[in-house]
Amino acid sequence: MSGKFIVIEGLEGAGKSSAIAIVKTCIEQAGHSLVCTREPGGTPMAEAIRECVKQDWQEKVTIEAELLLMYAARVQLLENVIKPALQQGQWVLGDRHDLSSQAYQGGGREIPDDMLASLRAISLKGFKPDLTLYLDVEPEVGLARARGRGELDRIEQSGLAFFTRTRDRYLQLAAKDSSIKVIDAMQDMPAVHGQILLELQDFLA
Amino acid sequence: MSGKFIVIEGLEGAGKSSAIAIVKTCIEQAGHSLVCTREPGGTPMAEAIRECVKQDWQEKVTIEAELLLMYAARVQLLENVIKPALQQGQWVLGDRHDLSSQAYQGGGREIPDDMLASLRAISLKGFKPDLTLYLDVEPEVGLARARGRGELDRIEQSGLAFFTRTRDRYLQLAAKDSSIKVIDAMQDMPAVHGQILLELQDFLA
Repeated sequence: MSGKFIVIEGLEGAGKSSAIAIVKTCIEQAGHSLVCTREPGGTPMAEAIRECVKQDWQEKVTIEAELLLMYAARVQLLENVIKPALQQGQWVLGDRHDLSSQAYQGGGREIPDDMLASLRAISLKGFKPDLTLYLDVEPEVGLARARGRGELDRIEQSGLAFFTRTRDRYLQLAAKDSSIKVIDAMQDMPAVHGQILLELQDFLA
Repeated sequence: MSGKFIVIEGLEGAGKSSAIAIVKTCIEQAGHSLVCTREPGGTPMAEAIRECVKQDWQEKVTIEAELLLMYAARVQLLENVIKPALQQGQWVLGDRHDLSSQAYQGGGREIPDDMLASLRAISLKGFKPDLTLYLDVEPEVGLARARGRGELDRIEQSGLAFFTRTRDRYLQLAAKDSSIKVIDAMQDMPAVHGQILLELQDFLA
């Protein structure tokens, strides 16, 4: 594979959308053809699965079903979009990827590590991003920003303790993996964007 | 749990529908309140997942995604319908359950056993039916019957070798588990129904 896979991660309201816009510009200016993805979703079937996950069902949505759906969507995107693009030498910019499941389901929902490891093995078979930019915000700040944009979906309504566990897991995982860069997204926007550009220049060099 | 969970299994065209009708009558005559389920499906969310699995997508549907979706639907049905009914003393009659994944995905699609075992552990946590009636037919016979009824869906179009592997796996699993009874569904209908009733009388006694 000659392309690179870069992922933007973070809690709701961390500023992923503007980070994606900046990274996109930067990669394209470096002369790389770029495919943008989002998870869960990014293929017709994966988007249908996303609908299943996000919808406000009248039944109890088990944490196991939520997790299995996330990985089903991920495999569809990986095999139909991400891997083919990388093999053709294109770069891929992901709005979330597996780190989200590890943080939200593993940290937030407290799903045991061995369960997540099994699903990663089944779905990803060792595949991982070349670079992940994790936009770190305190949950209170992120949720306040997200609320300002309108409705929160079922997962986004999970409460502060859930998001605190999710953030803690993001930070733990970043500390163990040098391909995950922590961006301080509590700073003002120019400082956040500056830090993103520095990490990207390092990576491109 | 005071209720019992009985499952009807078999290839397309094995005669599951009429078997279900007979078992239903028999259990209700024995004085038990009965809930009927089908898999994948049986709750609003699980039916939406069933749609994802069955639909004829323009993208490659990976065997992993298909498998993850089957288990996502299964957990929703198990936790929202099957377990609550059994706990209330109702009996549950399932049109397919986990044995289908083991036979179709494990046998037919040749998914490794350890992958299936991981998903079973995540989703079922040791839960299993009290009785399974597996209606055994040669794939040629079953598929000819199913074709006579109209269109075959995406999975049903998988070809004869797929269904032969699926049947072989059903028979292997039945040979190892005394709660799975093999019904010879190649016989004429009265003989099949007679065999089903004998197995049920044994179970009810």
